[in-house]
Amino acid sequence: MKKFINAVEDVENEMLEGMCYAHPDKVERLEGTDVIVRTQKKEGKVAIISGGGSGHEPAHAGFVGKGMLDAAVPGAIYTSPAPDQILEAINAADAGKGVLMVVKNYSGDVMNFEMAADMADDIEVEEVITNDDVAVDNKEDRRGVAGTIFVHKIAGAKAEAGASLAEVKAVAEKVIANTRTMGAALKPSTIPAAGKPGFELADDEMEIGIGIHGEPGISREKLQPANAIVDELLSHILGDDVDFEGAEVAVMVNGSGATPLMELYLMNKRVHDVLTEKGIKIAKTFVGNIMTSIDMAGASISLLKLDDEMKELLNAPADTVAFTQD
Amino acid sequence: MKKFINAVEDVENEMLEGMCYAHPDKVERLEGTDVIVRTQKKEGKVAIISGGGSGHEPAHAGFVGKGMLDAAVPGAIYTSPAPDQILEAINAADAGKGVLMVVKNYSGDVMNFEMAADMADDIEVEEVITNDDVAVDNKEDRRGVAGTIFVHKIAGAKAEAGASLAEVKAVAEKVIANTRTMGAALKPSTIPAAGKPGFELADDEMEIGIGIHGEPGISREKLQPANAIVDELLSHILGDDVDFEGAEVAVMVNGSGATPLMELYLMNKRVHDVLTEKGIKIAKTFVGNIMTSIDMAGASISLLKLDDEMKELLNAPADTVAFTQD
Repeated sequence: MKKFINAVEDVENEMLEGMCYAHPDKVERLEGTDVIVRTQKKEGKVAIISGGGSGHEPAHAGFVGKGMLDAAVPGAIYTSPAPDQILEAINAADAGKGVLMVVKNYSGDVMNFEMAADMADDIEVEEVITNDDVAVDNKEDRRGVAGTIFVHKIAGAKAEAGASLAEVKAVAEKVIANTRTMGAALKPSTIPAAGKPGFELADDEMEIGIGIHGEPGISREKLQPANAIVDELLSHILGDDVDFEGAEVAVMVNGSGATPLMELYLMNKRVHDVLTEKGIKIAKTFVGNIMTSIDMAGASISLLKLDDEMKELLNAPADTVAFTQD
Repeated sequence: MKKFINAVEDVENEMLEGMCYAHPDKVERLEGTDVIVRTQKKEGKVAIISGGGSGHEPAHAGFVGKGMLDAAVPGAIYTSPAPDQILEAINAADAGKGVLMVVKNYSGDVMNFEMAADMADDIEVEEVITNDDVAVDNKEDRRGVAGTIFVHKIAGAKAEAGASLAEVKAVAEKVIANTRTMGAALKPSTIPAAGKPGFELADDEMEIGIGIHGEPGISREKLQPANAIVDELLSHILGDDVDFEGAEVAVMVNGSGATPLMELYLMNKRVHDVLTEKGIKIAKTFVGNIMTSIDMAGASISLLKLDDEMKELLNAPADTVAFTQD
């Protein structure tokens, strides 16, 4: 295992410290916890929190800030955060109008976030569960992956604009209903404490439909040209139950941590060409390492079918460590 | 070679297209060239251009936009751009107040940028050469590496504020005089057309002082903990000829393309701790994949000793693909 780390048990802590040191104007660590909150808390708005296992940086702490999240709860790497940590985040983030939890659909995450919500007696807490990964057939089992960041952005802008908890939850659910993602991996990730890759791929193989923790995909295939991979991912996304025909969409081409921008932009060219050919209008595109999988070499494509409300909120200002726009 | 690419000869072109498709509000390709320019050209200001071989994304095209560059000239991967392309950038970027070329110190880059400047008869062109890599002893041979982006940011803000070509050049030279960088690599990069890594590192080895094209460093050592690596890089930077004692600095912890944010933030903790211990004040920190080396696993640390002017310009607004602040 070749990584810039010290003791494997210190990775999460040192990473969080290093992030807060880098951006003291934006984020800070809630004392005695692993919770990352805004340095400048905004009162009188619905608070939005998210979280899950570490290893997906910049998600989720990198999206704490104006117009997106109020707190992030990172667990150990690829491990759900404990309910007491989530409760700390709920208590710290609440600004008098209730808390929306944006939870990716993993059983441990859902269980622990819901336990924390039950423990938060005096605060109104609502939950949405993201499930954008079309690689899983059974909809109830679909994992929350990169498309979760669309929820952070759009629900975050709605909350920042002063909407009620019910309104913020409603737009978050609308984003979830209209977001579909699928990914592919060329090389697995290595959890520091494990010291070796989570799975193996031969030099000429790729995994289509990979999960963000290396969960098996829908097929293991011979490595294909990027265009063929993009076409396969898009065929699953466009063939799912959101009707993208003639729609206006947001696109996310997301890297898994070890895939350089060069390749992600190259993939985006194909995404653009295929969608344009199909008459799908691209309103906004995000390319980068957004929801990563430690040092996996891989990428995912997400499409969000927009309406006027979601489009306006997607274009609203945000100021976070990992995403800023006027 | 496992990459998301199509034909190796199409990588640069498809990447540039994909970038422009992703950010049509910010950048566009100058027709018939590889030059990336601002979608919204600003007249009546000094123009700043930069460039060099591709493979360092988001550098340099990702820094084209308000408050930074006016044009970027990407060559083929790890290959200097041709003079005619640079001349196209000069002609397109010039907005009536002359052009500053920010060139990294590689003989091919310097030669070709200077040839282009000579060809630009009617436009006043000045040049600065970045040379922040302290891994090279002989100062004339020092390479321009990640610290180059400090020049883009600070000179870019000066130009945006309406300064003259001489003033913009002067502040760029001040940044160069006060910036020092050093990097380390854990795994080499692979140029697509080569199909195999540019050098070899054993499973337990790292290269200290690596160049951004894989140029040999100052030592090949057994892999050390991150803190020891940071300490070694900082000892070279702080031991060089900029007096950082008691200074206020900007920090950049830069990834080489395949190193995840997790590790870069972890390194930043150590950078913060060491500098703080030494009484060096950190005014601003940048952490991310900024000046990459295709898919190299590696990182560099840059320090810029600030004065009031540089600090103010560093904090001025910017709006580019890869860096935005209010």
